[in-house]
Amino acid sequence: MSQKTILVTNDDGISANGIKALVEVAQEFGKVIVVAPNKPQSAMGHAITINKPLRLHEVSVFGKNIKSYACSGTPVDCVKLAVDRILKHEQPDLCLSGINHGSNASINIIYSGTMSAAMEGAIEGIPSIGFSLQDFSDKADFRASQHFARQIINVAMGNGFPKSKLLNVNIPKGKIDEIKGIQICRQAKAYWKESFDERTDPFGNSYYWLTGEFINKEEGIEGTDIEALKNNYVSVVPVQYDLTAYDDLKEISEKWRF
Amino acid sequence: MSQKTILVTNDDGISANGIKALVEVAQEFGKVIVVAPNKPQSAMGHAITINKPLRLHEVSVFGKNIKSYACSGTPVDCVKLAVDRILKHEQPDLCLSGINHGSNASINIIYSGTMSAAMEGAIEGIPSIGFSLQDFSDKADFRASQHFARQIINVAMGNGFPKSKLLNVNIPKGKIDEIKGIQICRQAKAYWKESFDERTDPFGNSYYWLTGEFINKEEGIEGTDIEALKNNYVSVVPVQYDLTAYDDLKEISEKWRF
Repeated sequence: MSQKTILVTNDDGISANGIKALVEVAQEFGKVIVVAPNKPQSAMGHAITINKPLRLHEVSVFGKNIKSYACSGTPVDCVKLAVDRILKHEQPDLCLSGINHGSNASINIIYSGTMSAAMEGAIEGIPSIGFSLQDFSDKADFRASQHFARQIINVAMGNGFPKSKLLNVNIPKGKIDEIKGIQICRQAKAYWKESFDERTDPFGNSYYWLTGEFINKEEGIEGTDIEALKNNYVSVVPVQYDLTAYDDLKEISEKWRF
Repeated sequence: MSQKTILVTNDDGISANGIKALVEVAQEFGKVIVVAPNKPQSAMGHAITINKPLRLHEVSVFGKNIKSYACSGTPVDCVKLAVDRILKHEQPDLCLSGINHGSNASINIIYSGTMSAAMEGAIEGIPSIGFSLQDFSDKADFRASQHFARQIINVAMGNGFPKSKLLNVNIPKGKIDEIKGIQICRQAKAYWKESFDERTDPFGNSYYWLTGEFINKEEGIEGTDIEALKNNYVSVVPVQYDLTAYDDLKEISEKWRF
């Protein structure tokens, strides 16, 4: 069996501890290439850079055995640059994104640069996994995350990757033996109720900081990612990017007349 | 019946011709409030601004009867600021985004700031529609788009808005009588094969412009948005944001053992 190629990226930037932890695990599975943002790019969603050019610099962040590149763009830009300019459209075996500092469960997947990077991999046909740890600290302990990431990559590579080629993995905070196991879940229905903090600058003008409250519409409902995490399980959600609402499609096709 | 409130936004910026065209149509349906980016924000996806504060300025762009605000953030930031700071969480009856200069059919929905703004509306429970015209020119002719937007808003408000509360509407380029009608569709399976244009700056350093080729994996397949547009129909795709791949969920729940 030829050696596998694994593309690694993230949204917290190439110098974050989370990507270091993920590169360590990825190395056990094959040759690792890293293309990651040169600065934090959290909450960038699926943004791409079209109005200005991008920069890509080879850096030495993960030791001399791992080719790594810092990119001036978004997480999705990183995957696109990696595929075209580094891998020259030779498909890698796996694209890993993370380990994110903070949860990307439920509706957070929509805002997440980590998950959008993984989704871009999947759109291009690469089996892709985004990993996130439920701990926003930049000093978060990634040892349990590494343990479960290893286990999930093993199973996903061994047992047939799902057809949509994308997994959203979230790991609860805690030590390995505090985490009860891994659950395959669906995305919980939830949203953020925003509440902007209004302040006044030294010149008397208003400015606003985004804050918000996470509203879980499926509180206590088994089978959702949020509930798995609450019960101290790692959540694995298989993800797709066909956003068609098929039930609605059927209904309005019958009901609506133009 | 009390007067309806309609929130209007876009991603091309508050001074784009497309939003002017949409505001004109929206006015026919109720009281319009505009909160839109103060500069172009195309391809911003579902990005939100969390690492810096936002500015919001009342402006007079659409005449004195329409309250309008320019926001320093992304399209999704605009919806969030509108809901919290302008509407004070009093739900509007409708959120309209666009009319985008350029198609957002198929996989383009993922990258689109226009559609992400509309999706944010839907996530917050507001019936939302994103409109896009298949013409990137800033001098595009929006008259046919206005005609079909009016028709679609009428039907959607009258016949019961779909449960997922989100429509992706794309309008082919052309005059009203050149467009054959409206089709309810699903999102075509497609992707962009990126190809970066590499250049050298005056200091000898490389930089990259994102370009790409749109690859439709369902060329000629009826029922997809791309095919509808190609046949000169307006495409209407009902959209949802539960990204769970339910078929994969079933399959890996049975197959995978940890």
